Amino acid sequence: MKSIKALAPATVANVSCGFDIFGFAVEAPADEVIITLTSTPGVVIKQITGDGGRLPLHASSNTAGVAVEAFLESIGSEQGAEIVLHKKLPLGSGMGSSAASSAAALVAINHLYDNPLSREQLLPFAMEAERIACGSAHADNVAPSLLGGFVLIRGYAPLDVAKIPTPPNLYCTLVHPHLELKTEDSRRVLKASIPMKDAITQWGNIAGLVVGLMKPDYGLIMRSLHDVVAEPIRSALIPGFENIKAESLRNGALGCGISGSGPTIFSLSTEYSIAERVGKALQQQFESMKLKSDVFVSKINDAGARVVA
Amino acid sequence: MKSIKALAPATVANVSCGFDIFGFAVEAPADEVIITLTSTPGVVIKQITGDGGRLPLHASSNTAGVAVEAFLESIGSEQGAEIVLHKKLPLGSGMGSSAASSAAALVAINHLYDNPLSREQLLPFAMEAERIACGSAHADNVAPSLLGGFVLIRGYAPLDVAKIPTPPNLYCTLVHPHLELKTEDSRRVLKASIPMKDAITQWGNIAGLVVGLMKPDYGLIMRSLHDVVAEPIRSALIPGFENIKAESLRNGALGCGISGSGPTIFSLSTEYSIAERVGKALQQQFESMKLKSDVFVSKINDAGARVVA
Repeated sequence: MKSIKALAPATVANVSCGFDIFGFAVEAPADEVIITLTSTPGVVIKQITGDGGRLPLHASSNTAGVAVEAFLESIGSEQGAEIVLHKKLPLGSGMGSSAASSAAALVAINHLYDNPLSREQLLPFAMEAERIACGSAHADNVAPSLLGGFVLIRGYAPLDVAKIPTPPNLYCTLVHPHLELKTEDSRRVLKASIPMKDAITQWGNIAGLVVGLMKPDYGLIMRSLHDVVAEPIRSALIPGFENIKAESLRNGALGCGISGSGPTIFSLSTEYSIAERVGKALQQQFESMKLKSDVFVSKINDAGARVVA
Repeated sequence: MKSIKALAPATVANVSCGFDIFGFAVEAPADEVIITLTSTPGVVIKQITGDGGRLPLHASSNTAGVAVEAFLESIGSEQGAEIVLHKKLPLGSGMGSSAASSAAALVAINHLYDNPLSREQLLPFAMEAERIACGSAHADNVAPSLLGGFVLIRGYAPLDVAKIPTPPNLYCTLVHPHLELKTEDSRRVLKASIPMKDAITQWGNIAGLVVGLMKPDYGLIMRSLHDVVAEPIRSALIPGFENIKAESLRNGALGCGISGSGPTIFSLSTEYSIAERVGKALQQQFESMKLKSDVFVSKINDAGARVVA
């Protein structure tokens, strides 16, 4: 039977001022999914590597499995699928681990059927998978992982996403300290209401970030990458966050913040060499707190998940 | 002595989802200011027409006067100026009346000195004039009146404005019902804090509006022109607002909202004929409530205030 491999990238949700509505994809790391069609119905997770045995092997509990089941049902297929998942993204890291698995699986299965659905049409299936993984069908990781680049999720009723042209000179540093935060814990610390003046600051900044990305105007991007809503609260869950952020900016990053709900820290820079320097500096900073960390430096991924030979 | 006339356009602040950070300029109406340099120091308001005698003639209490005083001081001039102001904008209408007078005055006086300052550099003087007129040095009317087009005021500490390219097919209808709201009253009804979910909706929409304007994507502009923060509260001060808005959309407008703090209603449309039809429909709607109204239909003004022969 036909078999195909696809990769889907890690993503940064929120992007400081874009809490709950914004995300972007990076080149590395990326989850790998290999899908083989089967003549009998049903989706089976055949193997998962790289997860330390922590991910569920039952298809209906696994984001890749759920996404493929939803896809097959939507096109009325009577075939089934076997899934092999090579996790390259750390779990619970705030890098969109669950999203990358479902995005890769969807791009693979769609390809096996000669791409009957567009990337936008695959989104709802990936969102259903997010519901399984995180408890809510949010799109701020799955949309950039599928579409690539910076993606605005304007709203959900109905789903309204807009991809923003990727500026040419933008590099991301992801530093993942080895401590685990649960998304639910990160959400729980947020408040149900916010001061009007903070809200105005935040929407001035997200508008500024979007204008900066689209012009592009790197100075405006830099001035806009501030979060007065989630970061002041969530950063308390990340040891030494203030120093980490200051170190990133001191090394030349445009901005630095919490990736998704953390604990991964993202920084954006206008040169690869700066992004690398920032990575090393942040890793040392975590080391000084006896925390190991992984560093990923890459361009913005403009194409999203992709099929590989 | 040298004399010059300048026009500065009416402006729509807030633009639904851009509360306190966004505004745009229209072609009509526009205030006219004639400035004559004098050999003796001091700024004198020589004449004001069109205000029904309501504007202060003392230069330091008048937005045009304050702006010119600040300009002359900044360039260290030992000359003075005489100002004639022909008000074309209704006062207290939410169309940026005070801003148009100071913007026109600044562009005129700057021209008389061979433009030593850029439009951006004139902004702080116009903001000082706003402080006299409205009690706060906000920029969401003066920035678009000086710069033209759609302008983001990302923040004030320090002032950070970004002009957004004007989409080719965008027309504005302003309908000014003859009832007066004081800006202070309109601000007073707003709450000091807002639900997080409303804030997220609002910043999704302002980001969507900016992306829509810049692409341009008129559908996205339409879907983004919603205000869940100020409009639900302020609209209570405008009789029949819900019907007015529904009538605007029914006649084909992309969106409709309160201009600034009201009572003027703005609508945006992709064709001049639609913008005209919307204007007539809204005027009739107000008429059915025994309210007279003025209607202004025009393109977006992309150049801002300008000197005329």
